[in-house]
Amino acid sequence: MAEMINIAVVGFGNIGSYFYKTLEKNKNNISVKTGKIPNIKYICAKNINKKRSIKIPKSKWFKNPLKLPLIDDLDIIVELIGGSEGVAKKLVFSALKNKKHVITANKALMAKYGDQLAELAESNEVNLEYEASVAGGIPIIRSIKENLIANKINKIYGILNGTTNFILSSMESSKKKFSDVLNEAKNLGFAETNPSSDLDGNDSASKLRILSSIAFNKTISKNKILIEGIQNINLTDILHAKKLGFKIKLLSISEIKENKLIERVHPCLIQNNSYLANIDGVLNAIVIDGKPIGKSIFQGEGAGPGPTSSALISDLCSVMRGNIKFPFGISSIFRKKIAKFNILNHSCSSYLRIEVKDLPGVLSSITKIFSKNKISIKNLIQNPDKKNKKASIIIITHTNSEKNYNNLLFNLTKNKFVLKKPTFIRIEKM
Amino acid sequence: MAEMINIAVVGFGNIGSYFYKTLEKNKNNISVKTGKIPNIKYICAKNINKKRSIKIPKSKWFKNPLKLPLIDDLDIIVELIGGSEGVAKKLVFSALKNKKHVITANKALMAKYGDQLAELAESNEVNLEYEASVAGGIPIIRSIKENLIANKINKIYGILNGTTNFILSSMESSKKKFSDVLNEAKNLGFAETNPSSDLDGNDSASKLRILSSIAFNKTISKNKILIEGIQNINLTDILHAKKLGFKIKLLSISEIKENKLIERVHPCLIQNNSYLANIDGVLNAIVIDGKPIGKSIFQGEGAGPGPTSSALISDLCSVMRGNIKFPFGISSIFRKKIAKFNILNHSCSSYLRIEVKDLPGVLSSITKIFSKNKISIKNLIQNPDKKNKKASIIIITHTNSEKNYNNLLFNLTKNKFVLKKPTFIRIEKM
Repeated sequence: MAEMINIAVVGFGNIGSYFYKTLEKNKNNISVKTGKIPNIKYICAKNINKKRSIKIPKSKWFKNPLKLPLIDDLDIIVELIGGSEGVAKKLVFSALKNKKHVITANKALMAKYGDQLAELAESNEVNLEYEASVAGGIPIIRSIKENLIANKINKIYGILNGTTNFILSSMESSKKKFSDVLNEAKNLGFAETNPSSDLDGNDSASKLRILSSIAFNKTISKNKILIEGIQNINLTDILHAKKLGFKIKLLSISEIKENKLIERVHPCLIQNNSYLANIDGVLNAIVIDGKPIGKSIFQGEGAGPGPTSSALISDLCSVMRGNIKFPFGISSIFRKKIAKFNILNHSCSSYLRIEVKDLPGVLSSITKIFSKNKISIKNLIQNPDKKNKKASIIIITHTNSEKNYNNLLFNLTKNKFVLKKPTFIRIEKM
Repeated sequence: MAEMINIAVVGFGNIGSYFYKTLEKNKNNISVKTGKIPNIKYICAKNINKKRSIKIPKSKWFKNPLKLPLIDDLDIIVELIGGSEGVAKKLVFSALKNKKHVITANKALMAKYGDQLAELAESNEVNLEYEASVAGGIPIIRSIKENLIANKINKIYGILNGTTNFILSSMESSKKKFSDVLNEAKNLGFAETNPSSDLDGNDSASKLRILSSIAFNKTISKNKILIEGIQNINLTDILHAKKLGFKIKLLSISEIKENKLIERVHPCLIQNNSYLANIDGVLNAIVIDGKPIGKSIFQGEGAGPGPTSSALISDLCSVMRGNIKFPFGISSIFRKKIAKFNILNHSCSSYLRIEVKDLPGVLSSITKIFSKNKISIKNLIQNPDKKNKKASIIIITHTNSEKNYNNLLFNLTKNKFVLKKPTFIRIEKM
């Protein structure tokens, strides 16, 4: 008879119960393919009595998740609590120390403690799998570690957050403003009640740190990196961008430049005929640029119970098939730190929207600041708002450095005609 | 010290030598990741004395590939000869029988003998890997078998042939005719000297049979399926399609309908804002529609030495990591045949171009044939060519069955006004 693999699921909300259902449904298929029978033996939930669409046998409920790692007849712990600290952290560390395989969907935990956890997993000869932590509907982690193993990757980038992508594409298609679309996203279940880590780019940044670590065979960077969210993107910017042939997307970009690592998450103007410009709604997409494969592109749903369960089960089957694998594809001994590329030397062209008083001499005062900072202007559009005695100046610049842009923004903000800090969005060539 | 894995490469053209170079370059990286050292010990080539960009130590050349399976200190045979018969077939069968792992890029062999080969591999407890046989730059085979293991896939479709996609997209962008673009493709190395199996759809069909077998856990279908190539696609069709908001693409589509399998390869009109319409040049793209993942999309280069080597090395590492895996993700015992969906019951709307004599009564005669066959017309454009006393009638139909279209085409071709067999292209909803 096939060996039974005992599993504990910790955290039993939407994702947990969908995972449970999907696994039960596919049990036979999975047993046939892996030669082992997955058996969810224990389930921990904050509230056992919560109304659920599935019936869980009473015997499966387990009270204290932190006692799970000490149970003998348990092989795998699936951590679905979330958050980089607290119970999730304690549980995963203790599970690995006690030689239990761990499967987690927790990007915050992996981005923060992934290196230590990988070392623990390696020394205790168990697996630590986390496919669901980045873009659930895209099998990107295993693809980099296994399918693209022959490649020297020099850049990995894409759309890693479905909530913000939904908001930006809805603003464009419906011409509604940010706050309205955000409420819509909440009602549709595409944004959490507190969506701050999505909106401010931190969710994307955690995912990016995980991906670039695997892609470049380096430890997870703890660098302070450029992270800007979409909170300050105005409908007017989206419409101006559209007129100029661009779309605004929140991109996550990691690349090796002069043997140094540059990671950044920020809104970008990209040509509207480029591949990523056409990824709308809650979709995620990731582009890997490597040798010898060229560009390999992956697209799918980023989150939600379905895609996440698909990723969790692929992790589960990978563990069940046996073979202890390095969590980051390579032994911790060989994962070195990589120097950080100085972001001030990064260069790109850019889009600026400057709100000014509509007075004589404004334009010459503004353009003087540009020339003082050695930033040359490619396009300039002035939109007067006579009624309010204001004007918007939209500028597309030629390529320049982050350093000069910083000074430019500082000088512009100080200028007596300028009403508020200008909106600055980098233009990313694709 | 790490274990040495001895490899023989059989077939040493462009792909073989690129694979060799890439493997040598990545040897250290691969050893670190797999814990074993890959060693190409034997190389077989039709012509040993051919000028090559790399130097091969004399000791590696091996004359008779069919003797390789009998060598004791050989672990893996990489078959790069091609073709479903002859040496390739003999070599792969004999290698598996002699308990050598096999890695092959040979789609024709896998599509024809994959089931038998998988049984052999399974009973001899060796691996048979063939990631490079379908869309080299897209890790699709391992993705279906492992990353998407939790999913019930009901449809898999896409662009599986780079040569034909290059030709169709170049015709559209350059407005050149088929034969000119084909010559260009040959000069650029995007089409083989004899490109017939690319152009007539058979190359795509082999790949589709492999993919649908893995996706649906069934044996490879030997069904006579609908295969149409692009040889009869005229520039005028591409331009008409464009005006109507469509692009013409050679798609490969496999799906389960009423528990039966329908596989087809044919040119399609697809909405020009759909994802696949924007896959241009030699790119390949594959869409998987499954539960619970939703749509998972993969895009990359289809062929060429780089992408193919990437796929071959991912196979190599999979073998080197150990673990004997079922070649089709599931034991041969469980791979059942699936009934064939009757293509005559397949329905779609369609595009027709009918070349007729420019005489009175033509239009009524033609439209009468449509109504007799119960096919209703959505759009009709008549383009007279007064000088030659001809006219082109372009018709977009409402949805109808393959059966009725067959009758329609038969009746149209017989009609006295019709100059030649009409061009008929199915419209595929995406």
